[in-house]
Amino acid sequence: MPGPLSGIRVLDLTTMVSGPVATMMLGDQGADVIKIEGPSGDLMRNYGVMHNGMSASFLSSNRSKRSLCVDIKAKAGLEIVRKLLPATDVLVQNFRPGAIERMGLGEASVRELRPDIIFVSISGFGDTGPYAHQRVYDPVIQALCGLAEIQADRHLDGRPRMVRTIIPDKTTAVTAAQAITAALFSRERTGQGQHIRIAMLDVMIAYLWPEAISSLSFVGRESDPARGQMGLDMVYKTQDGYITAGAVSNAEWEGMCRALDREDLLSDPRFNTVVARGKHGAERRALTSAEIEKWPSKEILRRMDERSVPCAPVLGRNDLLSDEQVRINELIEIHADARFGPVRQPRPSARFDRTPARISRMAPFLGEHNAEILSELGYPADQAERLALDKVVFRPEQK
Amino acid sequence: MPGPLSGIRVLDLTTMVSGPVATMMLGDQGADVIKIEGPSGDLMRNYGVMHNGMSASFLSSNRSKRSLCVDIKAKAGLEIVRKLLPATDVLVQNFRPGAIERMGLGEASVRELRPDIIFVSISGFGDTGPYAHQRVYDPVIQALCGLAEIQADRHLDGRPRMVRTIIPDKTTAVTAAQAITAALFSRERTGQGQHIRIAMLDVMIAYLWPEAISSLSFVGRESDPARGQMGLDMVYKTQDGYITAGAVSNAEWEGMCRALDREDLLSDPRFNTVVARGKHGAERRALTSAEIEKWPSKEILRRMDERSVPCAPVLGRNDLLSDEQVRINELIEIHADARFGPVRQPRPSARFDRTPARISRMAPFLGEHNAEILSELGYPADQAERLALDKVVFRPEQK
Repeated sequence: MPGPLSGIRVLDLTTMVSGPVATMMLGDQGADVIKIEGPSGDLMRNYGVMHNGMSASFLSSNRSKRSLCVDIKAKAGLEIVRKLLPATDVLVQNFRPGAIERMGLGEASVRELRPDIIFVSISGFGDTGPYAHQRVYDPVIQALCGLAEIQADRHLDGRPRMVRTIIPDKTTAVTAAQAITAALFSRERTGQGQHIRIAMLDVMIAYLWPEAISSLSFVGRESDPARGQMGLDMVYKTQDGYITAGAVSNAEWEGMCRALDREDLLSDPRFNTVVARGKHGAERRALTSAEIEKWPSKEILRRMDERSVPCAPVLGRNDLLSDEQVRINELIEIHADARFGPVRQPRPSARFDRTPARISRMAPFLGEHNAEILSELGYPADQAERLALDKVVFRPEQK
Repeated sequence: MPGPLSGIRVLDLTTMVSGPVATMMLGDQGADVIKIEGPSGDLMRNYGVMHNGMSASFLSSNRSKRSLCVDIKAKAGLEIVRKLLPATDVLVQNFRPGAIERMGLGEASVRELRPDIIFVSISGFGDTGPYAHQRVYDPVIQALCGLAEIQADRHLDGRPRMVRTIIPDKTTAVTAAQAITAALFSRERTGQGQHIRIAMLDVMIAYLWPEAISSLSFVGRESDPARGQMGLDMVYKTQDGYITAGAVSNAEWEGMCRALDREDLLSDPRFNTVVARGKHGAERRALTSAEIEKWPSKEILRRMDERSVPCAPVLGRNDLLSDEQVRINELIEIHADARFGPVRQPRPSARFDRTPARISRMAPFLGEHNAEILSELGYPADQAERLALDKVVFRPEQK
């Protein structure tokens, strides 16, 4: 059964994370994604842990794609990409403003070959404004969008902190995948393509707002945004590790007191209503922390769960590989791969019962599908060989 | 110009954040979203900052929707929802497993009235596994998916920390919006609807993997996931605030040394190549920190920017309202609203040039569109009044 986006072809001219992860989602959902790279390849190919010439980061951001490595600066190279365009539905690029036009693949020239194409430009800040000229690093977006301030610990030194994973890059990826899909839907109904522009800063402000910035909504009645924040640092130390647990309703609070063998707290007026517990939050957390620290994780989690108190161990990433919830829901798949042996990847998260998304292949080596794609375009074998000899298309030796 | 999803009707039976923000995105893109609530309404209506009977959190998670407040437990109430179904394209619900069937709106009975509907179930953990029975709080997902461990500061005490905004809820929202849109696209081509199941834990593992978990990809060659992490805590204190700055390439490092008036470092063998800078990262950061602290934010940012070193101030959320980049790109819109006066909301982030997404209305009061929707369904005015008197549909008095 093909995925929901089967029949769609995507040319992916993006590098790093925000673009590649977006097109990977489309690939997992059945689109034919051709990743187009120059001879030096996406920088992510050299980033992080390597095995048999493949980086784990690149692998995990570029599965379900084919690779065409072509020198677009060469006339014959640009011609190959132009030959792909009539059968292309979506072109995604994240070059700096102006670069795609200089390469001869600006919207106007692309649209001549494929009038109803979805043309997608991903950037850090859009085309204008004081930051538009900057190279985009994830921390710069985290600093500007308020995320670093959200992460400041007001009870400690108030120093802003970054989230240690690239939230802006990845949220931009999912947002871009949604927008592209919406434009594809619209094209089915109207017959018309369009240009979608997505900037990381815009994405993050829209993403954070609903809870973390919402208290600035009423003009003239702004209040401290931290008041609307629902993310609490509910990590408790146990005898032998860390857990999270939360008691919001009265029933949950009662369950927590009983789990902790502190039934005496049930009648304590500081804690016996939702409002009182909110008012005495700091005392309550100090008390709960001190009690939880007396128990081993496994035992206190069992006691809380028996009393319907939401709780969980804090898992390390290595723990995910043996976690029962992860296993039962088959969240991590193992694919046999001729090049790398068994490879783990996360299952595409949304489960479609009629058109399942699936990982159709591991990430490609640079230029792995040059010959296949040239052949599909009708290049005769001798001409394809000539293009390779001339390094118009390129495939490095595999070690 | 209507949005890309115009012509689509969504029944939104979700509460809190992950479901409501997903359907809000669809509403901003032109779908007719009807939020269906019971007489007590979505809990978020009472959460956080309030103004004229509207909570800022609810406002920011439920714009571009209409509200129908109906008692589905009453036969006449269920009948209203069933009458909506033939013209409904998407039904989204996030009740606990089994609940929607008990309400008489399980997939099978819904599909009798609308065979090609997209039926969407959002949950914390899916239907099975040790956590499936738990009430879902965002910290529980953060603890289980590895995010809390990612956030541990290894240089301090190694204690796991939560991200202080509800990343799992909001990432699930965007992921769900993408999946729903893909299913709508597929239905245009195949004529068939389907059931999409989305669990927050699944979403987060897929979301974190590409960078933060990717080093577990090669079976038998797993390495410390922290090695693949690209999110760095690059916050520097200045004389009068905090900034972020990063020098990756040689040119950027040179720029940073010159900006800091430390040209002497250019020839320092600990720092004069990318590899050397990686190897002496701790020394380099200590040194950079000490130097940056000698400057006022504005001056050092100007000096770095002039030398093409990526940098930015760490903005607080209040600062967003006056930031030049935010202003020029019109990231925050002000809508005049008869009920609340001027209201700020973030612009939908993806910009479609042909079918622009736009905020079509502020969030509705509970039951605000009861009469309008009943009239569209063909209920005569006297019958609609009777349903209101019988509290089958409900609209609380506005203060």
